[in-house]
Amino acid sequence: MAESIETLGEFGLIDRIAKQTTTQQPTTLKGIGDDCAVLSQSEGMVKVVTTDLLLEGIHFDLTYCPLKHLGYKAVAVNLSDVCAMNAYPRQITVSIGVSGKFTLKAIDDLYDGIRLACQRYGVDLVGGDTTSSLTGLTISITAIGEQKPSRLAYRNGARPNDILCVSGDLGAAYAGLQLLEREKRVLKGNNSASPALDGYKYILERQLKPEPRPDIVDFLEKIDVVPTSMMDVSDGLSSELIHICSQSEVGCRLYEDRVPLHAETKALCAELNINPIVAALNGGEDYELLFSIRQEDYPKFQSQPGPEIYAIGYVCEKEKGRRMITTGGDEADLQAQGWRFFTN
Amino acid sequence: MAESIETLGEFGLIDRIAKQTTTQQPTTLKGIGDDCAVLSQSEGMVKVVTTDLLLEGIHFDLTYCPLKHLGYKAVAVNLSDVCAMNAYPRQITVSIGVSGKFTLKAIDDLYDGIRLACQRYGVDLVGGDTTSSLTGLTISITAIGEQKPSRLAYRNGARPNDILCVSGDLGAAYAGLQLLEREKRVLKGNNSASPALDGYKYILERQLKPEPRPDIVDFLEKIDVVPTSMMDVSDGLSSELIHICSQSEVGCRLYEDRVPLHAETKALCAELNINPIVAALNGGEDYELLFSIRQEDYPKFQSQPGPEIYAIGYVCEKEKGRRMITTGGDEADLQAQGWRFFTN
Repeated sequence: MAESIETLGEFGLIDRIAKQTTTQQPTTLKGIGDDCAVLSQSEGMVKVVTTDLLLEGIHFDLTYCPLKHLGYKAVAVNLSDVCAMNAYPRQITVSIGVSGKFTLKAIDDLYDGIRLACQRYGVDLVGGDTTSSLTGLTISITAIGEQKPSRLAYRNGARPNDILCVSGDLGAAYAGLQLLEREKRVLKGNNSASPALDGYKYILERQLKPEPRPDIVDFLEKIDVVPTSMMDVSDGLSSELIHICSQSEVGCRLYEDRVPLHAETKALCAELNINPIVAALNGGEDYELLFSIRQEDYPKFQSQPGPEIYAIGYVCEKEKGRRMITTGGDEADLQAQGWRFFTN
Repeated sequence: MAESIETLGEFGLIDRIAKQTTTQQPTTLKGIGDDCAVLSQSEGMVKVVTTDLLLEGIHFDLTYCPLKHLGYKAVAVNLSDVCAMNAYPRQITVSIGVSGKFTLKAIDDLYDGIRLACQRYGVDLVGGDTTSSLTGLTISITAIGEQKPSRLAYRNGARPNDILCVSGDLGAAYAGLQLLEREKRVLKGNNSASPALDGYKYILERQLKPEPRPDIVDFLEKIDVVPTSMMDVSDGLSSELIHICSQSEVGCRLYEDRVPLHAETKALCAELNINPIVAALNGGEDYELLFSIRQEDYPKFQSQPGPEIYAIGYVCEKEKGRRMITTGGDEADLQAQGWRFFTN
């Protein structure tokens, strides 16, 4: 009889996952296998903790998201939250609820993606929970990181005249999703068609396999800069800017023509008749870091080679509002759900 | 318009939860409201982390589990895992997925129970995630605790001649569940009947509102005893003993007549024609602590007043197997799923 989730049972499944999992972090004293994982503290560091719940049909669609990519992405988005505190990710726990439709191969694929992300980012899988589900797939991930308290970046420290920076291009993950949705509609009821995804490798990867940016955390330490505020772009640039402004009690000016957009994002947006700045402002899932720095820290970014950083605007007094200066020179209020104002 | 989950939205719901939540742990540097919670380390302590995923229809049945109780229980079982390391619970994160059938009142009830458990056990709610769900209620909780590394109790340290102890009576949660299931069957299609739960307050509470045992962790520190192994009884005494024996590479002898059983457990088991030792061995969800101690530590338990501890057997060499000595003087192998051997 072939091994299945039913014949393995919960403890068998946990054993299987544990056997395929190794730990490498010096702070992991005990991984999978007891009532709790045990984590030591590096000298002078504090811990940061974040958690995400991902539900089939809400956060992912298995018709176009391979399980290995899903596992990778689920880890990546949690590590991104740790990076968004300007902290280093160290450990994760992963809980899954799976219905009877899942094979053991499917679970292996999911965990292959989880482990790949762990290896890529030097993070240990130290625990979790497995359970059966009456419906679809449920994934809950908790990520733990650490950093010196003096280097942590919160959302509430932005001050007028700080420079707003972002670590990479925006809107690509949203463009990738639009492409996948279009192909899903085209292919429905047409088994002979192949999806027309050629020329869009970058935006598909941004959607299916986003990457957190611990390299930015590293670089900021190297050049001795602590951002005055920081978030990761998960809900769209506009929404994240509003969070930072609201929690820091400041306003901002964003320059439309400074927002980095990838050529593929622009190309697909042109095909679909979407303004690409809308994808950047409201698309989300880019997982780049958005942060503010003091003006005097700006030259440090040029002091040594490192990842590209884009200055996209500045922080101003609260009374001046949160606005985008468009390429045409107009000003427009930023909206958390800005679709109404930006449709072509 | 009455406030609803839809009108509040995800951020509104998080704000609402955050506003109703206060923190009290000195190790909580930052709670809800940023990308991560931030936790400091107490001098000389390490952190322990555990996580559980609870799904409607699998782990709970909302037809007889009030949401406030469910919130309380979801926290309690996670704190119990922290106690099972002989550690002190300090923080939790809570993620929920809710379908459209839930009202804001229902979510408030759930969080009332969560906060009640937090207050009762001096634990901070420091983060989480809220999302909509296509189906039922999903709850994922991560609990974080701390302890000196020298006081942690793992599953693999039991040695021959150690005494096996348990912190309270077993089988009551299972008996409570049988009672609830019976009443659910009786009431089906009979709206005029009242459930016949009189005289079973204790077993109902054990099922609906279990309590973790940080008082045992406290007491063990007070009397200077570190258990050689420890688990909490979530899957039934038999299953937990097998885990400890397997991970410690030892055998054990359990005395049937020493296993503590509550009078209500015995009474309901008599009504339902179940052997109450079956409820204790295989029922689970008691959340008492099962642990082994060195013989020379045993007198310390009498050295000062404290919670009652029950010696229920001893650890032996692996070759001698894992067996229960029945009240009649026979020996029976312990089975993780022992129903076959213990039916009346």
